[in-house]
Amino acid sequence: MGGEPASMACRRAVRAELADLAPGTLVLAACSGGADSLALAAALAWVAPRAGLRAGAVCVDHRLQEDSAAVAGRAAATCRELGLDPVHVVSVTVATDSPSGLEAAARTARHTALTATAADLGRAVVVLLGHTADDQAEQVLLGLTRGSGARSLAGMPRRRDCFRRPLLDLDRTTTEASCDELGLTPWRDPHNDEPAYLRVRARAALADLTRDLGPGVRAGLLRTAELARADADFLEGEAQRHTARLGTPPWAVADLEKLPQALRGRVWRAALLAAGAPPTDLTRDHVRECDRLLTHWHGQGPITVPGRVWVRRSQGLIHVDADPYG
Amino acid sequence: MGGEPASMACRRAVRAELADLAPGTLVLAACSGGADSLALAAALAWVAPRAGLRAGAVCVDHRLQEDSAAVAGRAAATCRELGLDPVHVVSVTVATDSPSGLEAAARTARHTALTATAADLGRAVVVLLGHTADDQAEQVLLGLTRGSGARSLAGMPRRRDCFRRPLLDLDRTTTEASCDELGLTPWRDPHNDEPAYLRVRARAALADLTRDLGPGVRAGLLRTAELARADADFLEGEAQRHTARLGTPPWAVADLEKLPQALRGRVWRAALLAAGAPPTDLTRDHVRECDRLLTHWHGQGPITVPGRVWVRRSQGLIHVDADPYG
Repeated sequence: MGGEPASMACRRAVRAELADLAPGTLVLAACSGGADSLALAAALAWVAPRAGLRAGAVCVDHRLQEDSAAVAGRAAATCRELGLDPVHVVSVTVATDSPSGLEAAARTARHTALTATAADLGRAVVVLLGHTADDQAEQVLLGLTRGSGARSLAGMPRRRDCFRRPLLDLDRTTTEASCDELGLTPWRDPHNDEPAYLRVRARAALADLTRDLGPGVRAGLLRTAELARADADFLEGEAQRHTARLGTPPWAVADLEKLPQALRGRVWRAALLAAGAPPTDLTRDHVRECDRLLTHWHGQGPITVPGRVWVRRSQGLIHVDADPYG
Repeated sequence: MGGEPASMACRRAVRAELADLAPGTLVLAACSGGADSLALAAALAWVAPRAGLRAGAVCVDHRLQEDSAAVAGRAAATCRELGLDPVHVVSVTVATDSPSGLEAAARTARHTALTATAADLGRAVVVLLGHTADDQAEQVLLGLTRGSGARSLAGMPRRRDCFRRPLLDLDRTTTEASCDELGLTPWRDPHNDEPAYLRVRARAALADLTRDLGPGVRAGLLRTAELARADADFLEGEAQRHTARLGTPPWAVADLEKLPQALRGRVWRAALLAAGAPPTDLTRDHVRECDRLLTHWHGQGPITVPGRVWVRRSQGLIHVDADPYG
């Protein structure tokens, strides 16, 4: 293995992301065989022994394409050749009729399988994901157009649960160049050309936006993510503090009215989720409708929120209950 | 004047936006002669007398195109025909070599002229601007790609100083349809086809994004703006409170470190602006560099910020000063 620039950048990123781990910790690269995760696996294989860590890989077979088992098998073989051990292939079943869509279902199945594999292999096992700055910029763009606020603009977190994303500051061109330098042939997912997938359309959208507004767009999106993350962390913490202080509903209208709008929206959301509203069905419009019980009160009736949650105002109190007729 | 749907929507929006004004207040429509501001002027001419308000117009001649005086003159004549009175044409000189660009310079010159005209005509004069939901969505998109945080994602405020934007919830197609209904022929700014202008490129970018990601994009951008505005209002208020509490620098490192990152960034910005950094030159990178005096302290030297501001850490204190060699 040479020390060419792109591979060096990947190794440096992986090394930095693992610096806090205890010696002997097992780190797994989630590897699809694509350029990003292949470069990740190669970087991990180089970094781990030098950092006193153990390094393995997990290749998830989503069983959504005919040759998916062969693709996962080849990715696993490459990981073994890179010196990773253990290397597991895990098959998952993706709910093809999920209301949140095939991509979300595949992601959920993948994350569940990775988490389970990590847990099987021991406590404190870390799983690395190969998302790059390009993935992050696309994610921020999707968050913006979804219009669901600071947390969704924050994009993917660098760390969450057992997962870490060391390549978030690197370009896709870097992972591709790294594979090239190392003589690794990445698998090209045919789904990458399938505009039915939101991820694919996001990639096209970022390319179009860059053409329209200039090459600084991507960096702007990444800065937006960073700032939105800090804002969301603080605002959610403050909202949590107020929700705890308010206790379980009913809540006094006067107490809610006192909260600044930025916190009130988040407090509403927390109350609706706690009452059983499913997070995926709860929209900005539900929250706004609830807030109008404070800001535009004219004796309106109860508001029904998905998950059979009723919100109503009565005698200076806001009630959040299970639908009595549900 | 008929009561057709698009014109009705414009009138309703203008009426709602002016509902809080005292009888006899003078309201001016800023009118370029384009579809948005022409529909605005027509709606104002209809609403004002029925709401007990006085209604006039201001047409700004930017003198950036050869026939600009004639265009402004025609817009003013149409405003007079609509029954607006007084109608003023104001010529401005736009700094064509402004470092912030021609569009920003034109906007500044226009706002200054409108503010001055309103002030000349009396206290509490209100100026209406014809920006629509399309303009707002484009503005949010630009804010996103600029990557400067919640305030820039919030887009244009509905009200600021003497300005109000009654059409922010209406589409550009509605203002165009209103002109059509009323038999008004809008001026078509040839600059609207000039991709050198950021505004024009933003329009193309929004169209591309809608094609790539679907028709919900615009609504998502507008929701983002609304949420970002509430967040920015609260966060800036909190940051201001902390800045006031900290007083004039030097500040104790320990006091700054205690602040959550979302507030610390805004407190840094306030301190740098107060020390003389020009707002347009102060970037996220300057703020981040300052913050590293706290988060990545290794004895680094003073940081120089535009406007000849020096920031340094010494003996547990952060100093923000005018450059001693400046």
